[in-house]
Amino acid sequence: MESNDAVIAVNFKTYAEAVGPRSVALAKTCEAVAKETGFTIIAAPPLPDLASVAASVSIPVYSQHVDDVRQGSTTGHVTPENVAASGASGTLINHSERRMTIAHIESLVGRCRALGLSTIVCTNNIGVTRACAAFQPDFVAIEPPELIGGDVSVTTANPGIVSDSVGAAKAVSPGVRVLCGAGVKNGADVEKAVELGTDGVLLASGVVKATDPAKVLADLVSGLRR
Amino acid sequence: MESNDAVIAVNFKTYAEAVGPRSVALAKTCEAVAKETGFTIIAAPPLPDLASVAASVSIPVYSQHVDDVRQGSTTGHVTPENVAASGASGTLINHSERRMTIAHIESLVGRCRALGLSTIVCTNNIGVTRACAAFQPDFVAIEPPELIGGDVSVTTANPGIVSDSVGAAKAVSPGVRVLCGAGVKNGADVEKAVELGTDGVLLASGVVKATDPAKVLADLVSGLRR
Amino acid sequence: MESNDAVIAVNFKTYAEAVGPRSVALAKTCEAVAKETGFTIIAAPPLPDLASVAASVSIPVYSQHVDDVRQGSTTGHVTPENVAASGASGTLINHSERRMTIAHIESLVGRCRALGLSTIVCTNNIGVTRACAAFQPDFVAIEPPELIGGDVSVTTANPGIVSDSVGAAKAVSPGVRVLCGAGVKNGADVEKAVELGTDGVLLASGVVKATDPAKVLADLVSGLRR
Amino acid sequence: MESNDAVIAVNFKTYAEAVGPRSVALAKTCEAVAKETGFTIIAAPPLPDLASVAASVSIPVYSQHVDDVRQGSTTGHVTPENVAASGASGTLINHSERRMTIAHIESLVGRCRALGLSTIVCTNNIGVTRACAAFQPDFVAIEPPELIGGDVSVTTANPGIVSDSVGAAKAVSPGVRVLCGAGVKNGADVEKAVELGTDGVLLASGVVKATDPAKVLADLVSGLRR
Repeated sequence: MESNDAVIAVNFKTYAEAVGPRSVALAKTCEAVAKETGFTIIAAPPLPDLASVAASVSIPVYSQHVDDVRQGSTTGHVTPENVAASGASGTLINHSERRMTIAHIESLVGRCRALGLSTIVCTNNIGVTRACAAFQPDFVAIEPPELIGGDVSVTTANPGIVSDSVGAAKAVSPGVRVLCGAGVKNGADVEKAVELGTDGVLLASGVVKATDPAKVLADLVSGLRR
Repeated sequence: MESNDAVIAVNFKTYAEAVGPRSVALAKTCEAVAKETGFTIIAAPPLPDLASVAASVSIPVYSQHVDDVRQGSTTGHVTPENVAASGASGTLINHSERRMTIAHIESLVGRCRALGLSTIVCTNNIGVTRACAAFQPDFVAIEPPELIGGDVSVTTANPGIVSDSVGAAKAVSPGVRVLCGAGVKNGADVEKAVELGTDGVLLASGVVKATDPAKVLADLVSGLRR
Repeated sequence: MESNDAVIAVNFKTYAEAVGPRSVALAKTCEAVAKETGFTIIAAPPLPDLASVAASVSIPVYSQHVDDVRQGSTTGHVTPENVAASGASGTLINHSERRMTIAHIESLVGRCRALGLSTIVCTNNIGVTRACAAFQPDFVAIEPPELIGGDVSVTTANPGIVSDSVGAAKAVSPGVRVLCGAGVKNGADVEKAVELGTDGVLLASGVVKATDPAKVLADLVSGLRR
Repeated sequence: MESNDAVIAVNFKTYAEAVGPRSVALAKTCEAVAKETGFTIIAAPPLPDLASVAASVSIPVYSQHVDDVRQGSTTGHVTPENVAASGASGTLINHSERRMTIAHIESLVGRCRALGLSTIVCTNNIGVTRACAAFQPDFVAIEPPELIGGDVSVTTANPGIVSDSVGAAKAVSPGVRVLCGAGVKNGADVEKAVELGTDGVLLASGVVKATDPAKVLADLVSGLRR
């Protein structure tokens, strides 16, 4: 992450629309929109597709998860070193669908930093945002679980949780950047997110399950520009 | 798995020697030995490298792990559909370094079968072998945890656990094939494993950390031939 | 468990109606009905109430859960030795609300047996019943998760899963006794369970949340007698 | 906890010396020393003994663990309501032998507070202390895992981690009190802990496995007095 520009981070989750070759295709769509518009789009493909996606595009590719286990006799886990070797440039940590112990989150932020990997630590409320900001990740991403996958953007449903998370995070660690997510669908949502003090959004189904992801992405980044 | 030939299954774990591009290289070494010798070598690379390895070789590629979660809002997990879409042809389940609930193991064997994925369910003793054989996976792989990563092959340290696991598995599900692992290092160990009634071995460090993996693999498959 | 009589096992779960002193009161109600009718009623109170309930009644008291960890530096866990020292005479293992790895289930059945503790291993379908019966616990208890807490008894909704579980368990381990549960509410359900080949039932809300638990228990045991 | 006096918190873990009736006996020893000396000693017995210990002594009794699950259909878990109903007055949270997700820790501190239960959130390093202090529990307890169960007190092995944890916690939440633990054995260790800014210690084997726990406890509290 060379710049401090706002970002659109796209979590592919394990949606059927974004597995295997489709995950490479969706990442290329993200890349095309990023190139056209000059904005940063981060792609977080399914774990098994991480290296193949990272080899296919020049935009930042993040892992959806990383385990705080050592390299070596840790079958079926994803170490920070795995993420780095796969060509990814960062990782989500503690997504609400993959929650982690506080000791592991703290440890992983440090291990990733030492490997040059960026980190987005996901949080579910202001208290957890404040705590995670103390670990000084690159980003915290506030996503109220009850709004994830829904039709109403967090920026509309609960703008206060967004602005208060920004305030709480910056109070603890001024350098931490804040994303928000849950229900984010279009450029107006992104514009609102930026107005509320964030550095962008983390979203999933709004892009992944769209009929025309390129069109949705172009709309989303237009919210950064305003 | 078209044939019923005995196999050498190589678990790359998360060893530094087998991450990222090195994982593709090691899989190509496995492929070269398989082609030269006509035996089946299965490669199980780190999760983030699964699709890129599967795209690079024609031998069977297995995931090291799969989660019993649905497709979709399951960030950071590996669904059976993910494994299939990545181009892999099977998966390990319940490795001793990644143990699963019995309900998930039972469910996953069925889900994988429905997707055409082969399954190797790992077990830690005869009782667990008998229970897992009841799920009718393609393979059970008995690996006494106390011998994993050690210098003495299970076939030497505890031949009885191998032959008794074969007996227990076949008594419950005659079609289930049995592998053994832990400490397996060379062709003599493989030969003994086959004598004890198995269909081959599951091993890791013996290949992954070898100075010359091709040489070790050639020796291992020679044990199948005798 | 001295006899092979059929049993009614009451899982108090963590219902508000059965915590703290109320858990002792409910156990005493179970005891009163057991004494009046001569049938065996097992009480499984919340974990923190285990020793106090066991000290208060003479019927069998079971833990709702036990962990496969060693005695000693295992804060916040419940070892088999804890269960025994608390005065309980057995334990549930692998309840669908507290699922365990297959390696832990296998280990715990043996550890409990060595300590003289009876075991009820809960299962969610016929395949898992077959696998768990291989561990030779005292009981397996089949409870289809989708029926737990519902209004229709498993004996009505899916009698085949009950009789097939009995068949599957006995085929693997003839000495294993089988319970069924989920939606069981009255004596007619119990009578049907016994007709289907079980040795009784495991139930929770039907007793715990009843206006008059003594009356419900008396009705339930009447189903054993017919 | 009516006062702000320093405390000695004794975690019985699952040591054989402190299960079942022995857990009541040890709690009575703690009570006797507390009464004689006027200092606060907290007893944290094994989970199954929680209610029986709480009914036997008048000193504060804490649970070793609590789960962030709702009351009701949560077999084998310990809810905050269970802890309260058992007569305990508080709970440990996130002990290094029973680590929890950050979302659960945050939620539990609030749920316990609403029920009038005190909380001791255990942490493993300064960063995690800072994060947990943000949740405003009654206490954070810093215990470097590598020193737990060892022969050298954290106050000797790493006094800086103790004083820095105090500083970090107070900077985030001035009202949070800080304990330290790991290797604490005697009154001199406690005296040092208090000098370093803590409000007392959390210890286990030093008391539980002592030949004469009353003597050890009397020595420990003497460190508070100096």
